[in-house]
Amino acid sequence: MRLVELPQILSALDEDAALTAVESGFRRFSAGEAQVAEVGHLAFTEPPGDCHVKSAHIAGDCVFVVKVATGFYRNVTVGLPSSNGFMAVISAKTGEVLGLLHDQGYLTDQRTAMAGVIAARAIARPGSTTLGVVGAGTQARLQARMIARRLGLSSVLVWARNDRAAGALAAEVHGSAVSLPQLCEQSDLIVTTTPSTAPLLMNEMIRPGTRIVAVGADSPGKQELDPKILARARVVVDSHVQCVGHGEAGWAVRAGLIDASSLIELGSLLTSPIDFGRDEIVVADLTGVAIQDVEIAKSVWFRLV
Amino acid sequence: MRLVELPQILSALDEDAALTAVESGFRRFSAGEAQVAEVGHLAFTEPPGDCHVKSAHIAGDCVFVVKVATGFYRNVTVGLPSSNGFMAVISAKTGEVLGLLHDQGYLTDQRTAMAGVIAARAIARPGSTTLGVVGAGTQARLQARMIARRLGLSSVLVWARNDRAAGALAAEVHGSAVSLPQLCEQSDLIVTTTPSTAPLLMNEMIRPGTRIVAVGADSPGKQELDPKILARARVVVDSHVQCVGHGEAGWAVRAGLIDASSLIELGSLLTSPIDFGRDEIVVADLTGVAIQDVEIAKSVWFRLV
Repeated sequence: MRLVELPQILSALDEDAALTAVESGFRRFSAGEAQVAEVGHLAFTEPPGDCHVKSAHIAGDCVFVVKVATGFYRNVTVGLPSSNGFMAVISAKTGEVLGLLHDQGYLTDQRTAMAGVIAARAIARPGSTTLGVVGAGTQARLQARMIARRLGLSSVLVWARNDRAAGALAAEVHGSAVSLPQLCEQSDLIVTTTPSTAPLLMNEMIRPGTRIVAVGADSPGKQELDPKILARARVVVDSHVQCVGHGEAGWAVRAGLIDASSLIELGSLLTSPIDFGRDEIVVADLTGVAIQDVEIAKSVWFRLV
Repeated sequence: MRLVELPQILSALDEDAALTAVESGFRRFSAGEAQVAEVGHLAFTEPPGDCHVKSAHIAGDCVFVVKVATGFYRNVTVGLPSSNGFMAVISAKTGEVLGLLHDQGYLTDQRTAMAGVIAARAIARPGSTTLGVVGAGTQARLQARMIARRLGLSSVLVWARNDRAAGALAAEVHGSAVSLPQLCEQSDLIVTTTPSTAPLLMNEMIRPGTRIVAVGADSPGKQELDPKILARARVVVDSHVQCVGHGEAGWAVRAGLIDASSLIELGSLLTSPIDFGRDEIVVADLTGVAIQDVEIAKSVWFRLV
């Protein structure tokens, strides 16, 4: 078993290649070509934190991946990063653990941002210029940079509960910190990245034609969007099962506002693009699927061996 | 992160201490003091194999454990062990991965055998002398040795589909290879350890008073016991949820032969022992619970740090 530490992972990660791989993973997942295990989830209270365990195998691959990712948000108060974990690359022929990418959450953060880019590209209105970023944590930073760069959006607006954090991120990405209603009013594309457990974006704030990539709701109890927004929108999901289970879509389905059968899976949308009307609201609900882990881990691993 | 390879694990494992720890884990699990994540399961066909991912945290512990165990049964044909995997010891305070016990399935095999001992002790009839072992693989070998030694059973009978393997195991444990009906007729306690997907022990074979520890059925589709045996028996389960889901108990519940509410959880039985009648048949259905992994991993880890 080869233990690969973070510096080596950083040097082996090629963003273009990984982005292409993750996009291909979504297509194959929605085409039924991936076996995805039940997500394991543990929650901690003292201090608050959680652990997600995701595993998948894509048909024909000689390896599969088990990913462990932890998030302990109070770590910052003791000078530690909040994310940790690893991705294990395991032979699908013998079960041997070939490699352990001790990415400390880095690859999870990257593949989550990449899913944001992939979803944003699939739903953004042509001619969009302004990206609104809700939140000011690691994902806000990564999504702000990667989406703005990859989609060529020239203006970035930031809102977060913590004004100082919002200001700092805005300065870093040459954008502006604004109020949440302002952000919704002025953004063509909004990405939400908070661990909120109650809606932040309210229905009244959202203009026709707005495109939203919602990344925060990745486990039961989390929610960033007023479900009434989804009732007005076309809803794209990374995984039908997961999003109905614990994504933004789930809240709207349980409230009887949308029908689970109306959800469009991202991989299917990538394979058969939809020309959304200019005034259509489109929400992409991303809960994080193990195939993203498989693809980014493979992308790194096969550059090392 | 500290990578601990097998030789160090072997030297740090104290069987007495680990057995006590696993027993304590069962009690705490049944007392509702453990958080156990959904089991992740992937199945492979070319060649056949599977991967189980189990994770749990016991209340108050400063660490939790994520365990990955693979089984590829054709590995023996290429001179490789069939089991592989690791147990990750992770801080429940920060999410940092503290250690990786690269046990290659060894600790999973041991904690499974230990559960067999713990269940056997809880259900065996006083004065038992003869152990019947069904199967001749790694678990058969471990259970035969550990149960016979720990319960002081002087005679071991072995049956397996493969006559030669049965003979070899019988010779190794100074026992006898016999037919399956003979084994059932003469054993006080039977342990079943096969990956069978259809009943091997039929109802007609089982005498009143027989005690059975069933270890083989650890994932959907597996089955070693005629469900009619369970209809005549007191049924003990390692995990109510898992055994109803994919253990021997599940087959009997789905067939309407027993009521799920009649199942006794092993941890509860350990805390409140039952004086079974001499002629009562008792079946312990063991599917393998993540708290066993937590306890054996902690037992090794805290002797290394």
